[in-house]
Amino acid sequence: MTRTVYVNGEYLPEDRATISVFDRGFLMADGVYEVVSVLGGKLIDFDGHMARLQRSLSELAIANPLSEAGYLDAHRRLLAENAITDGLVYLQVTRGNPGDRDFAYPSADTPPTVVMFTQSKPGLADAPAARTGWKVVSVEDLRWGRRDIKTVQLLYPSMAKMEAKARGADDAWLVEDGRVTEGTSNNAYIVKGGTIITRELGHDILHGITRAAVLRLAAEAQMKVEERSFTIAEAQAADEAFITSASAFVMPVVQIDGAAIGTGTPGPVAARLREIYLEESRSAGL
Amino acid sequence: MTRTVYVNGEYLPEDRATISVFDRGFLMADGVYEVVSVLGGKLIDFDGHMARLQRSLSELAIANPLSEAGYLDAHRRLLAENAITDGLVYLQVTRGNPGDRDFAYPSADTPPTVVMFTQSKPGLADAPAARTGWKVVSVEDLRWGRRDIKTVQLLYPSMAKMEAKARGADDAWLVEDGRVTEGTSNNAYIVKGGTIITRELGHDILHGITRAAVLRLAAEAQMKVEERSFTIAEAQAADEAFITSASAFVMPVVQIDGAAIGTGTPGPVAARLREIYLEESRSAGL
Repeated sequence: MTRTVYVNGEYLPEDRATISVFDRGFLMADGVYEVVSVLGGKLIDFDGHMARLQRSLSELAIANPLSEAGYLDAHRRLLAENAITDGLVYLQVTRGNPGDRDFAYPSADTPPTVVMFTQSKPGLADAPAARTGWKVVSVEDLRWGRRDIKTVQLLYPSMAKMEAKARGADDAWLVEDGRVTEGTSNNAYIVKGGTIITRELGHDILHGITRAAVLRLAAEAQMKVEERSFTIAEAQAADEAFITSASAFVMPVVQIDGAAIGTGTPGPVAARLREIYLEESRSAGL
Repeated sequence: MTRTVYVNGEYLPEDRATISVFDRGFLMADGVYEVVSVLGGKLIDFDGHMARLQRSLSELAIANPLSEAGYLDAHRRLLAENAITDGLVYLQVTRGNPGDRDFAYPSADTPPTVVMFTQSKPGLADAPAARTGWKVVSVEDLRWGRRDIKTVQLLYPSMAKMEAKARGADDAWLVEDGRVTEGTSNNAYIVKGGTIITRELGHDILHGITRAAVLRLAAEAQMKVEERSFTIAEAQAADEAFITSASAFVMPVVQIDGAAIGTGTPGPVAARLREIYLEESRSAGL
């Protein structure tokens, strides 16, 4: 089946889904994105992703070209046309195509570019990895200074992911000034003495939509949460570790730089959070 | 006249010059670029740009899809088809279009994407700004840690350029740990007591092709060169300041954060270097 892709209001077969070479997303990485998970045909945390999209666009002074209802319509049409039950919807907005290249922004009446496409991932919530856990390795964090803006400057996370694979791991935890910032496309957590520890929000990390939901659910479940950074050594000595992201939900981490975390198997806090997050998501999905 | 643009071996009218939305250059900023100046129909420092392109690609493990002769043929054909006497040729190579989105690199047989286009800039070497000089302002350097790889992650330089414009300046000098790294798309220099001072090469700055040529010419002209970083305060107290880039050549800087440099007019060292660089370039151009 040929996938249908959304490009600036048109629904196109994927091999005709193109943008201009002058698009600032292509020439200057001048764009932002969101990824919304789909479980049982429902969009997970859609409002949260739309709020973050608006924030990213505002930080870059790009006008949001569609309303939340407009994005929702497009997401639903793509799910229907591509027969997606479980999977993802990827959404990218760039500063558009000024027709030429210049470091200076184009005039404000240049329409932003909007691209959306689906990825079908049957059984997304039943990933076998959730039962065995991820291995991660530490990699120096060389990204730019505004990781709270969800831009398409993903070259370094991509390089770190490849380094992790080369070292036999599933992902990398990025380390800056001796402390973990986050994973390549997820937020990082450890659990010690019953307390969930994850880096505080700031310009250093992505403000994860799944992070916000999981921390809220943890608080509701009377779990103790501490928002502060931690070292790799502290993580290796923790009882548990895990990550959260829109597409991996809550994923246990069982090994860091070759050292087993706790028992070396997924821990009870990660398992419980995964369960309540998925339960809540399935019932609250749009 | 409709511009002719090169896309993966085809010469297309600019409004049909498109790439897939799945191109890693668009989704992940996974690509590199070069800009070659054209003076009197000749390509300036072409070999240097090709060598740096090869280095950038090697650092990212992207196979170079064309030979130097192949790039040269394409550059010349674009100059001819677009009737360019003075201007630029922009060249971008990305990791290609794997047909879907993934942080992991696609298989090695995925062909890289190659895009080239021209910009006509009549009188490029006679820019009036060279007689009055640029004003620059300092902006914190928030870019990633491998600025020696000439990637298309240009969002922050673009943001800094806009901040400079908003503050009434021509460009920004980026400052990290209290010391100037470089301009938004150029290398930065000061002159003090007859010595030319510019930051040493490393991962912090672009290895400018024009920088290399100008430092060589300066040495040949018996000028003293010191490769080390400097502060904004030191720059403000310098006798002269200037920048170099492929398209601005050698451009005097006469004001930094509102403070006049030296006499507040272009200095003799910058003027002399500009003259000998342009003279050498015109005679050595391909």
